[in-house]
Amino acid sequence: MLRSPTKRDAEAFLERMSNRKGSVVTEHESLERYNVDWTKQFIGKSKILLKPQTSEEISSILKYCNEEKIGVVPQAGNTGLVGGSVPVHDEVIVSIEKLNEVYDFDEVNGILSCESGCILQFLQEKVASSNHLLPLDFGAKGICMIGGNISTNAGGVYYYRFGSIHANVLGLEVILPDGTILDLMNKNRKDNTGYDLKHLFIGAEGTLGIVSKVIINCPRLPTARHVTFLACESFDAVQKTLDLAKAELGEILAAFEFMDQAILDEVGKEKKIPIAKVDEKSGEACNYRFCLTVETLGSNNEHDLSKMESFIEKSLANGYVVDGVLAQDLNQLHEIWDIRLSCNPIIKSAGYNYKYDISLPIEEYYSIVEEMRERLTSRPDARDMNWGHVIDGNLHFNVITPGNFDEDPELKALLDPYLYEAVAKRGGSISAEHGLGRSKKKYLGTLAKNPAALDIMRTFKSIFDPHGIMNPGKYLPMD
Amino acid sequence: MLRSPTKRDAEAFLERMSNRKGSVVTEHESLERYNVDWTKQFIGKSKILLKPQTSEEISSILKYCNEEKIGVVPQAGNTGLVGGSVPVHDEVIVSIEKLNEVYDFDEVNGILSCESGCILQFLQEKVASSNHLLPLDFGAKGICMIGGNISTNAGGVYYYRFGSIHANVLGLEVILPDGTILDLMNKNRKDNTGYDLKHLFIGAEGTLGIVSKVIINCPRLPTARHVTFLACESFDAVQKTLDLAKAELGEILAAFEFMDQAILDEVGKEKKIPIAKVDEKSGEACNYRFCLTVETLGSNNEHDLSKMESFIEKSLANGYVVDGVLAQDLNQLHEIWDIRLSCNPIIKSAGYNYKYDISLPIEEYYSIVEEMRERLTSRPDARDMNWGHVIDGNLHFNVITPGNFDEDPELKALLDPYLYEAVAKRGGSISAEHGLGRSKKKYLGTLAKNPAALDIMRTFKSIFDPHGIMNPGKYLPMD
Repeated sequence: MLRSPTKRDAEAFLERMSNRKGSVVTEHESLERYNVDWTKQFIGKSKILLKPQTSEEISSILKYCNEEKIGVVPQAGNTGLVGGSVPVHDEVIVSIEKLNEVYDFDEVNGILSCESGCILQFLQEKVASSNHLLPLDFGAKGICMIGGNISTNAGGVYYYRFGSIHANVLGLEVILPDGTILDLMNKNRKDNTGYDLKHLFIGAEGTLGIVSKVIINCPRLPTARHVTFLACESFDAVQKTLDLAKAELGEILAAFEFMDQAILDEVGKEKKIPIAKVDEKSGEACNYRFCLTVETLGSNNEHDLSKMESFIEKSLANGYVVDGVLAQDLNQLHEIWDIRLSCNPIIKSAGYNYKYDISLPIEEYYSIVEEMRERLTSRPDARDMNWGHVIDGNLHFNVITPGNFDEDPELKALLDPYLYEAVAKRGGSISAEHGLGRSKKKYLGTLAKNPAALDIMRTFKSIFDPHGIMNPGKYLPMD
Repeated sequence: MLRSPTKRDAEAFLERMSNRKGSVVTEHESLERYNVDWTKQFIGKSKILLKPQTSEEISSILKYCNEEKIGVVPQAGNTGLVGGSVPVHDEVIVSIEKLNEVYDFDEVNGILSCESGCILQFLQEKVASSNHLLPLDFGAKGICMIGGNISTNAGGVYYYRFGSIHANVLGLEVILPDGTILDLMNKNRKDNTGYDLKHLFIGAEGTLGIVSKVIINCPRLPTARHVTFLACESFDAVQKTLDLAKAELGEILAAFEFMDQAILDEVGKEKKIPIAKVDEKSGEACNYRFCLTVETLGSNNEHDLSKMESFIEKSLANGYVVDGVLAQDLNQLHEIWDIRLSCNPIIKSAGYNYKYDISLPIEEYYSIVEEMRERLTSRPDARDMNWGHVIDGNLHFNVITPGNFDEDPELKALLDPYLYEAVAKRGGSISAEHGLGRSKKKYLGTLAKNPAALDIMRTFKSIFDPHGIMNPGKYLPMD
């Protein structure tokens, strides 16, 4: 059993951070934004926020909490969508925001070493200025931190091209609950010396320790970039367009993103959608059934443009694509991307969001939306709005109650576990890239993992965190 | 303490494999090649070889050995170079060679599912016939098995382009020492449901269990392939050529391999080296100081050739490269690759091989050879011959005693631990892609991993394999 932290604990924490001003925050107002997650659906009641500046300070804090049996919620940018980064009760929040030093970017070997609290976009710009690319990109890049990206095994739009975080992280430093500073700071691209422990902490959502330092492999910065926005009138056509993109764009294909009409309608209220059709009945302009954002990244502008144009021509000639636009300059390119990257923030302000992040075999990708839509016919107040990284089989299925910002338990009960069961039946994953947090913990043992795998996970959790102080009440069902 | 297996155990194993003929091998002659590793430097004394056909049979065998405390050596293609796949004493050998079924190649999603005993080359051909590429390639591809590749986290020539096994394996089935069939057979590219346990078994060299089934993500098969063979006269020029290749070839750069003059001289005794210089002193033809094999893989022949020609022109114009040849057809392409891929087999027949597989920062890549060469001046009977995947910082440093096939303890003592210490000092890795096996176990705790990391590894080993039956005497120093 964990206990509530007290004023005396706050004093002990302050001592452990050299009595530095601002290192312990206890004012209600200052704590508010750390207690509420991005979706505003998960709200904690922490009364103590800590801002350590070094690995040693984190070590000392965790050791104390471990001895005193005080719950700890590690927090990075707090941009997660599954309630993983805010307390369930009154756990102490340990923010990594002050761990923001870049140690080194090694231009010769393409290796970035930094602290885990660095903002993603800052790191992207840092390595880009040395002609390299940080192989991670998310809509939240201006706020999210690299340590949070790693702890949630975040996916993103370039996953297909540059691979997962497991593929790109070379080394980590992790502070364990007993205060051990676990140095896994390998800088070699190839290192076969023992069990590769770092992978255990990637996607562990802070339940085994706090990631404090990071080493990432960065490829050269591509010099040519092209983006097209295409329309398809059936999901079969989307699939065929994807297949054609893989064939025609080959190694320069970097992103292939999907949006359906409902999300386009919603985003269209705030942003201009560059292509539209005429509705047969009303005679008015309306959005296509599906739109795709396709990006190439390469090293030769002329070659890439020729590949992109050939892809677009063929997809039009085959009838897969019915309309499209190719960005002619960087402004248009950003406008096109802005539509896709606005999906999340725009629906957030439209109503209550029932958010689902799932993986499916491509041939089942949209069938699940149609099945759910049928299930929701009794609820005309709810509308599904969907987008995702279709090239990875990753769908963001969302149900919104426009204008109504309260959760409706009846609607929720219509959605899950039914949706997760439908995903499992199709061989998909109930969490593609957002993680488990509080949202999916209860389905891990029934719809995602078998008892043997779950047992091993529980064993690992008990070894690293015997008192269960790390991010309690989330991720792993312990009983 | 483990005990020696007996005739009664052999009978028990036979029963566990339905008394199938050939499933238990006890004849000395048939066992011989399973007891000797590829280097012929590691020789076991096993009297029992088992050839299970199913996961259930492996499960039953391991459960029995675990209860009876009999050591087990899992064996795949037995092509390893560190003595990991043959017994130290008389452990039972469990070969996975009969687990050779391909379950499915899903062309739409590019996903291969198969048993772990499938030969790599067979799998390569299988997925190539469906227009996809298996993202692994090694010289031993005609013999090595996918389960062995995964268990050793094998690297290879396309690692730079297609990433590590951690990046490409989606799912595994592993049989644990207690007989548990651990199903981690995920087919989704993105799956964030709990600790990603599969990574623990990748590169564990069979010390935690036996990999029995595999799911691998396969990209589209590139349609254009070009290979050039280039000469440089200094390592600084090699580095500059590598840098230029990354800039000019960008996303189509697939392999960038390195050989030094000594290995070229040795390979040149059996294979024609396509480019040579005139020796200033003797006036005779001789090999260049360094040669490079550079490959591109892409989707447009014309574009790729134009990039390749531009790269070669610039590297010649800049003086980085002094001579070169671009393969004009598939025959020439294979002849060029054959030189690089013959390094290992050719030096094996030249004398005793002291083999080292290390990672280094690129700027230190050849300095270590020079340091070792100086150290070996007292031994004119020994010659270093070196090659490697320079683009990954991976060097295969080898010392040969031409004509002398016996290990010389004095020479060995000159080489290690000095070499490993020199690697550690430079921030490199003492095992890049070959693994630990018997060769490097003793240096793991002193030159590769810190006590905290080593402790966790030992804990994991104890959890999965409390009696230490799996691949005993290797990998992890347990005391």
